[in-house]
Amino acid sequence: MQVLSATNPAEGKPGLVLAKLQPENMETPLNVLNTWVVPNELFYIRNHFPYPNIDLSTWSLTVGGQVNRQLTLNYEQLKTMPQVSKHFTFECAGNKRSFVEPPVSGEQYGIGAVGNAKWTGVPLSYILDQAGINAGVKELVFTGADSGQRPDMAGDFNYQRSLPFTKELLSECLLALQMNDQPLPFKHGAPVRLVVPGWYAMANVKWLTGISASFEPFKGPFQAVDYVYLEREDAYQNALPVTEMKVNSVITWPSKGEVLKSGVYTIKGLAWTGKGRIAKVSVSTDDGTNWADAMLTSPEHLQYTWTFWQYTWTVNSSGHYSIMVKAQDSNGNQQPRISPWNAKGYGNNMMHQVPVTIPGTPVLH
Amino acid sequence: MQVLSATNPAEGKPGLVLAKLQPENMETPLNVLNTWVVPNELFYIRNHFPYPNIDLSTWSLTVGGQVNRQLTLNYEQLKTMPQVSKHFTFECAGNKRSFVEPPVSGEQYGIGAVGNAKWTGVPLSYILDQAGINAGVKELVFTGADSGQRPDMAGDFNYQRSLPFTKELLSECLLALQMNDQPLPFKHGAPVRLVVPGWYAMANVKWLTGISASFEPFKGPFQAVDYVYLEREDAYQNALPVTEMKVNSVITWPSKGEVLKSGVYTIKGLAWTGKGRIAKVSVSTDDGTNWADAMLTSPEHLQYTWTFWQYTWTVNSSGHYSIMVKAQDSNGNQQPRISPWNAKGYGNNMMHQVPVTIPGTPVLH
Repeated sequence: MQVLSATNPAEGKPGLVLAKLQPENMETPLNVLNTWVVPNELFYIRNHFPYPNIDLSTWSLTVGGQVNRQLTLNYEQLKTMPQVSKHFTFECAGNKRSFVEPPVSGEQYGIGAVGNAKWTGVPLSYILDQAGINAGVKELVFTGADSGQRPDMAGDFNYQRSLPFTKELLSECLLALQMNDQPLPFKHGAPVRLVVPGWYAMANVKWLTGISASFEPFKGPFQAVDYVYLEREDAYQNALPVTEMKVNSVITWPSKGEVLKSGVYTIKGLAWTGKGRIAKVSVSTDDGTNWADAMLTSPEHLQYTWTFWQYTWTVNSSGHYSIMVKAQDSNGNQQPRISPWNAKGYGNNMMHQVPVTIPGTPVLH
Repeated sequence: MQVLSATNPAEGKPGLVLAKLQPENMETPLNVLNTWVVPNELFYIRNHFPYPNIDLSTWSLTVGGQVNRQLTLNYEQLKTMPQVSKHFTFECAGNKRSFVEPPVSGEQYGIGAVGNAKWTGVPLSYILDQAGINAGVKELVFTGADSGQRPDMAGDFNYQRSLPFTKELLSECLLALQMNDQPLPFKHGAPVRLVVPGWYAMANVKWLTGISASFEPFKGPFQAVDYVYLEREDAYQNALPVTEMKVNSVITWPSKGEVLKSGVYTIKGLAWTGKGRIAKVSVSTDDGTNWADAMLTSPEHLQYTWTFWQYTWTVNSSGHYSIMVKAQDSNGNQQPRISPWNAKGYGNNMMHQVPVTIPGTPVLH
């Protein structure tokens, strides 16, 4: 017997969905996943510059600025420090940007610039304690090795982001050396990546080379120009910073435009939020007129991680159906049907909507 | 020196873009390709049913119906017959369906349900000559091994399509055993696939098991219900069959929503048509007000294959730009700005449009 089958790994299979080639930006094909953590090779990728060149034998992480003692740490030293493992869901601030109306520029992500993984590394607070942060420090500035030009101003820039110096936030951050029990992949920031739970993922600086304690608010372009909510394209005077993830959810099955028979189906998806936990997920199959509770089905339902949900749908009549989902978190935050427009398309947590059709029997002539 | 880099093949990379998991339907990430033929593992995939089970040791192709001599051919016999190689571009009739307004159900393909490959196999006419087609035959019906239920009618169906019995068309068809000099991949129809140059790719029946000559027009559901242009959902009395590919083109760079600096860029893309050759490709960078000729740059510019085109764009001012492309073929067919709507979203050859932004320098406060 010589059986032909579709299981040959060299045959076409779903992969990352390219939003832009240079720098490389790709989203996860969420509709093929049913694992609580996304495999590293299918985890979405967001870059601001081309991949940097890093020689691990000369690479170091400098902790400086307003500190008692400047530190210069190499990879071997970081590996010998205490390690902690935590599951965190990352979401790009530009996730769901392709649904923004009127459309905005930037990577046109659908629903897949989000992923859950196990991150292992040195607690940031451990390293800050070693350096000793001076009294009066307001922010920590994190510098990545990736650099290049921007379309909107002259000069070369490294990717740099700051965090407010608040014990509560910083006590949860990691300098991650591993992702899903494997060495951190280079495309995800090896040798070490800052991981900030609950924030949109622009905070998770990759290829980290520097941490600097500062008395002043950081004004770099990835802090003050990008990753701000703008009511109009030039309305920087009212700009609000992009920080924590908003409560959000997606439908992973069915896909948009599916044509199905009458029957009983399990609608499936994911929900997550920045602070707190997912408290409730509701599903509508009639374009938002009626809502019913979905069941939360994650193997583990931890803070800072997404949860699976599912809903049993019995459909007996032909027609067009609009399936929608909305989530609510333990702080009472709810998804809006349509998010307020902002010029850079950040933080779009509008309800995900999937039209499907149950056709009638065609009458031919 | 211990260099970290993004070239590790286990790291995330662009792959096929999933439209639907069951049956598997995926499109090509056209924006990563710069090869005249699409590699087999990135060639788009369109299925109507789950993958069939095929045991090559018992598989055969039957040629019957209104013939002088019924044939039953096994794979070894097909391999010993005369082989011909031709380059053909395939396009799914549902390509660009996701751009249809108002939206329609079906796989929501973007621009990537199209691909060019080298197909090698037995000329269909060679096999028809062996069988001897009876006088008065109107159509040939091709049956694939893939089968299952439909959402709109009871019963089990194989995928079946017919072609008009016209010498001109049939003389160009192949029964393909190879794709790009490799054995035909299973997901693309191994052991043998019908290849019909110039037609939308629903004609290219995969996993071929039968060819039947008929005096009557074939009325199977993939002929009479699907793959027809419908003015309204139920307007089967005026249905026109989907046959040859319409002239079409896409922009492969830049991507939608790119943010660029002022400068000189090469806009790139592809153009193809069913009958004839691509005669002209025009590009607009101002939303269709002004048009300029693009350069056709394919290494080979053959009938039934796509051609590369490119256009040099110099942009000095900040602003929003809408890049558009339109192609014209040697029969004088031109792409419309918007294709006439049809209920199943077939044959959408509307002009592809890519908005990009050249930002000004932000004024911070």
